[in-house]
Amino acid sequence: MSNLLQRKIERTKAMKFNIDKGCFYEALSDLSRSISAKAEPHIMSGIKITAHTEGLTLIVCNHLFFIERTIPIGTDKMLTIYETGSVVAPAKHLVDLVKKLPEELTVELMDRHKLSIKTDEISVVLSCFDVETYPKLPVLNLNNSVQIPGSLLNEILSQTAFAASSSDTRTVLTGLLVTFQDNKIKCAATNSHRLALRECDIETDIEGSYILPLASVKDFMRLFNDSVDMITVYVSENYLVFKALNLAMYTRLIEGNYPDLDSLIPAHPKTMITVQTSKLLKGIDRASLFNRESRNNNVKLELMHGSTLKISSYSPDLGNIEEIQQIIELHGEKELSLSLNSTFLIEALKAFTEEEVKLNFTGSMRPILIKPNSNKRHLHLISPVRG
Amino acid sequence: MSNLLQRKIERTKAMKFNIDKGCFYEALSDLSRSISAKAEPHIMSGIKITAHTEGLTLIVCNHLFFIERTIPIGTDKMLTIYETGSVVAPAKHLVDLVKKLPEELTVELMDRHKLSIKTDEISVVLSCFDVETYPKLPVLNLNNSVQIPGSLLNEILSQTAFAASSSDTRTVLTGLLVTFQDNKIKCAATNSHRLALRECDIETDIEGSYILPLASVKDFMRLFNDSVDMITVYVSENYLVFKALNLAMYTRLIEGNYPDLDSLIPAHPKTMITVQTSKLLKGIDRASLFNRESRNNNVKLELMHGSTLKISSYSPDLGNIEEIQQIIELHGEKELSLSLNSTFLIEALKAFTEEEVKLNFTGSMRPILIKPNSNKRHLHLISPVRG
Repeated sequence: MSNLLQRKIERTKAMKFNIDKGCFYEALSDLSRSISAKAEPHIMSGIKITAHTEGLTLIVCNHLFFIERTIPIGTDKMLTIYETGSVVAPAKHLVDLVKKLPEELTVELMDRHKLSIKTDEISVVLSCFDVETYPKLPVLNLNNSVQIPGSLLNEILSQTAFAASSSDTRTVLTGLLVTFQDNKIKCAATNSHRLALRECDIETDIEGSYILPLASVKDFMRLFNDSVDMITVYVSENYLVFKALNLAMYTRLIEGNYPDLDSLIPAHPKTMITVQTSKLLKGIDRASLFNRESRNNNVKLELMHGSTLKISSYSPDLGNIEEIQQIIELHGEKELSLSLNSTFLIEALKAFTEEEVKLNFTGSMRPILIKPNSNKRHLHLISPVRG
Repeated sequence: MSNLLQRKIERTKAMKFNIDKGCFYEALSDLSRSISAKAEPHIMSGIKITAHTEGLTLIVCNHLFFIERTIPIGTDKMLTIYETGSVVAPAKHLVDLVKKLPEELTVELMDRHKLSIKTDEISVVLSCFDVETYPKLPVLNLNNSVQIPGSLLNEILSQTAFAASSSDTRTVLTGLLVTFQDNKIKCAATNSHRLALRECDIETDIEGSYILPLASVKDFMRLFNDSVDMITVYVSENYLVFKALNLAMYTRLIEGNYPDLDSLIPAHPKTMITVQTSKLLKGIDRASLFNRESRNNNVKLELMHGSTLKISSYSPDLGNIEEIQQIIELHGEKELSLSLNSTFLIEALKAFTEEEVKLNFTGSMRPILIKPNSNKRHLHLISPVRG
């Protein structure tokens, strides 16, 4: 085929659409936050835009996941497709540009590497990537699926994901364990010094455990927020796929065996106390101001007279703080003193929505267990540090 | 004097007061933003607290200025002084702590280096600096003073200060020139590529020019905001002092000769155009997306057909943008093309409150002059760059 003819065919294939700036900007900026302008290979810093007969599909990806968002052709005239086609545009730059353009845009592919964006007074030519070299969405065998309310899924992820490890020494611990079993979904994470676990009843035939990279979970929570009604989760061997109406995320799984968590949870506490969640949280937060230099950010908890809890912290340079809080209820031994990592304790307490929580102690060098004052299966385990 | 006796005297001198947390926090956090936790010498990271019979005085300082804020004893019971005295506390740490404490605090000096802060349930000991080694407020010969409305002073500073140089090659250019002359105050700044100047009528007998360090001006604008009614400016040889009701700033002056500015302002433009300020600003802002890699951030302005202005920018990597805007009025030659630093142009346009501005051109390699469409003496001068 002659070059001239080839160019002519490409030219006739050129994508063209009209779109409302606000609608385009919202979709682009949501997605672009999931990718890096310095991505390697560089094409992953792009956003793939496909105009098709039903609307516009935007895809971003990195080494962990693909996110796909569709803007459908509606009756509200936000989007009109004139010609179908595809391009990969530099994402951050396109977002910055669309943000500063007026209300209605005409977008047209001039050749494989040049995108034209026009309004009445403004004319932009944007250099693009070659669409052929953009990573392809994985082709998956998706036999099994389960539906979960978006708000519930977001809640249990946010109550557990923070406890995963941020270092890479044991890859499985940098992920979130999601288990489907006996009509239940269970999310759990641990960095081997603390553990977070939350379980919920759902209707599902799926049985299996999957380890999601923490970075995927964070992007999931940002994108699929409470405004999403129902999320369908598809499971395959290497990927978990989350789908809402016009949004889908394909997240790669971490391979490996996750440690057995149930064996870690202490069964017979020696002391159980009930405290006000927000009051304890504030006390620990204050005490943590005096431990920033210490290796373990430790605060000291002491039971006093069986009715009060003393929270204290000390820094040789800054000074010290101590605070006395009333305990609501106590069962078991009345003497106790242990030191904990205040960051772990603060993050665990923030995960509870209940006004009161139970702290279970088994000994000064054994993990403490924190549970809500309800029947819900939700727990946090924190190992003590040397005081 | 025996050590024991000395300690006893210090003990009886110990400062003690009761204060509302919100009132204390507001004052501390305002002031602490003007200092660095890594200040050298380290005592400059502290905040000097003095309890006296009329209230509490807080002082922070750095190498450029002192700021003094007073919380007076009022009828609203925000503050009660029990014992007078003085201490220098670590500023950032005290702010973080007070923020997290409940409503009412009892603050007491235990010895020269230990400050006690107490509420019903919480007890804090904070390590402090030795008050004797804290820098002293300068003793100044303040003969002359002038009163200026706070809102006016803030306006003219914010319209000019940004044009000062951020590099140190010519120290005087890193400052803001403030001139009192013929019942006028004039503020001006230049980095030798652009110039900003604003003049206002005030009543004053003072005659003289003072160069303020840009860092002082920025802190001044943050602290003495529009809520301040009247500001009294005192002049001395080495310092300018700004005083409002419970707030004072002593700022050191930069020594040296400031360049003669009036000679720089072109008198006979060849072309004068009137444009919509916000529309031009938006256009330059859009065009600036395509020049981020270029050395001068340049955008090109071209007069077309005597009635429109073309704004364009080009990047070999990203693409290009061009935009046509209507001109409201034109006098003089109808042909023109020049390139300007877009950052300078954006900052200058943002300084105008007027809906329309006049752009005066003298030639493609001569500075352009921007003025409001009013009689106010306010101008910005920007040198062109090679396109």
